[in-house]
Amino acid sequence: MPPLPSELAYVPFVSVEHMMGLVHHIGIENVLIDLADEIEADFKRWELFDKTPRVASHSDVGVIELMPTSDGEMYGFKYVNGHPKNTKEGLQTVTAFGLLADVNSGYPKLLSEMTVLTALRTAATSAMVAKHLAPKGSKTMAMIGNGAQSEFQCLAFKAICGIDTVRLYDIDPAATEKCARNLQGTGLTVVPCKTGEESMEGAQIITTCTADKQYATILTDNMIGEGVHINAIGGDCPGKTELHRDILLRSKIFVEYPEQTWVEGEIQQLDKDHPITEMWQVITGQAPGRTDAKQITLFDSVGFAIEDFSALRYISKAIEGTEFFTQLDMLADPDDPRDLFGMLERSKG
Amino acid sequence: MPPLPSELAYVPFVSVEHMMGLVHHIGIENVLIDLADEIEADFKRWELFDKTPRVASHSDVGVIELMPTSDGEMYGFKYVNGHPKNTKEGLQTVTAFGLLADVNSGYPKLLSEMTVLTALRTAATSAMVAKHLAPKGSKTMAMIGNGAQSEFQCLAFKAICGIDTVRLYDIDPAATEKCARNLQGTGLTVVPCKTGEESMEGAQIITTCTADKQYATILTDNMIGEGVHINAIGGDCPGKTELHRDILLRSKIFVEYPEQTWVEGEIQQLDKDHPITEMWQVITGQAPGRTDAKQITLFDSVGFAIEDFSALRYISKAIEGTEFFTQLDMLADPDDPRDLFGMLERSKG
Repeated sequence: MPPLPSELAYVPFVSVEHMMGLVHHIGIENVLIDLADEIEADFKRWELFDKTPRVASHSDVGVIELMPTSDGEMYGFKYVNGHPKNTKEGLQTVTAFGLLADVNSGYPKLLSEMTVLTALRTAATSAMVAKHLAPKGSKTMAMIGNGAQSEFQCLAFKAICGIDTVRLYDIDPAATEKCARNLQGTGLTVVPCKTGEESMEGAQIITTCTADKQYATILTDNMIGEGVHINAIGGDCPGKTELHRDILLRSKIFVEYPEQTWVEGEIQQLDKDHPITEMWQVITGQAPGRTDAKQITLFDSVGFAIEDFSALRYISKAIEGTEFFTQLDMLADPDDPRDLFGMLERSKG
Repeated sequence: MPPLPSELAYVPFVSVEHMMGLVHHIGIENVLIDLADEIEADFKRWELFDKTPRVASHSDVGVIELMPTSDGEMYGFKYVNGHPKNTKEGLQTVTAFGLLADVNSGYPKLLSEMTVLTALRTAATSAMVAKHLAPKGSKTMAMIGNGAQSEFQCLAFKAICGIDTVRLYDIDPAATEKCARNLQGTGLTVVPCKTGEESMEGAQIITTCTADKQYATILTDNMIGEGVHINAIGGDCPGKTELHRDILLRSKIFVEYPEQTWVEGEIQQLDKDHPITEMWQVITGQAPGRTDAKQITLFDSVGFAIEDFSALRYISKAIEGTEFFTQLDMLADPDDPRDLFGMLERSKG
């Protein structure tokens, strides 16, 4: 019999099934709250992270990206694709997985599915940011775009910001129906709407999360009243935006990582000298957030590697002592590190 | 019971144990020959690849790198660390894994260990290049540095270039002993040597593969006779080289991807206008290789993403119809792609 791999050769792996089991085990709203706390804590130590814009490989039909970062102790990266045409073929627009590794040894310490986890961390990031920027006492959110991310957004804003009512709109009524059905029994009051305008009635927070339009204009300027917070998720690729430029000009704009947002976010429509505020500076108190009740605040969110890092670290702690992972024989670990060939030969058994 | 994941959710995974089983199943020399053919074929279509220098995250003790590339149909990347101090702690200097994905859908199609596979592809690349550059009828190779890569190099040069004798040298005699022991029964004549000079006696090919010195000088100018081929593997990081600059000045230098080699290879010691030749141009006949029997040819190898891509594609074909992989539930694949949340809810079971 070939020798068994040593303990060092194993990497804990969280499959989709395990991730779903873990989320139910902890409770989805608890997971969203925990993730928001982890992400906020990492935004507070933003400056010590090794940051690079994502490494993208573009094709005619989509993009494949690697999003690495490190806090000096742990290294993390996410693989993620974006293929808007996939939905028509019965595939996910976005699939993802991620890895954590020990900076000191370079050894991987966690491999995890991140399709479900990205949905959770994106929603947790949105709600964490809104907690800092949205009008105090916000109770109603317009949710425009009722695709795969929508329910996660609604639940995160309930759990983290205290939203009790969501007003749903999608150009496809079937998507709205699906979202409304999924939110039954969550405690949210759900109002399906027939137009974008209708969905914004009485909303203090407006979340846009649409996927497959090039320079779409989901929101036009006359639709937006004063004092609201806009959480813009869907504009996250070069050439992909959701908001009319006039809204940007009326808003105070907050971003994750400017180098990336200028390329991928709504602000690709603006001149490069337009003032923007980095969200980590608001969270650490170095820059003001909302300064006026009538101000429109806009979180131009594209998703950044540090949020995935926070999420992977959370999962690596959350699985400890549970059954929600398996061990993957992913690393060669010969008894004598210089004897890789000997390990191979002995495996003939 | 929670619903089973759909077929689309699964990604074939080749563990270390499966990789070793596959190598024995095919035969290690056959694998090296096949890999050299795959790599040579991809060097022939070099221009169509999407190429970027690796994305490195450096720390005081090592580096973690992502090496992506794409040929427009498939996308591949490798995760690899380099931690010279690991050996002392009983860990591998280098561990690696890799992924292939479909460019059209962005869906991963193969996840594989690459610690063993990188050793194989590095050796196959070295021997494939030497086939083009080394003196005709080369029979003897000096192998300087007898660590984890050394046996793979020796076997590749036997299988691909017809080398029948290897002369081994390492500053640590135990490494040479290990290498000599592992090469017993391979058909190679193995000559352990006490000095670097001794190892080069009668050698037409000199392979240097040492790991843990900053700007080491493994070879000095007076050690190198005319007409040899130098295969320099170990200088592959900023600040890490093996050859004295004078040798470079006497040699005709061949590289994989100049943008990367100028940063990581032996040529970081040279002025940026020093002439170098890209190996793919030699292989396609667009540039001459060796032009003179007395010429010293030098392959300044740092390892490039396309070689890993070739290796992953080879493995994805080689495992078809075998038992040398498992299926990983790595991708969420809801029946309705927009209904990720519904999939999560239904998994409560």
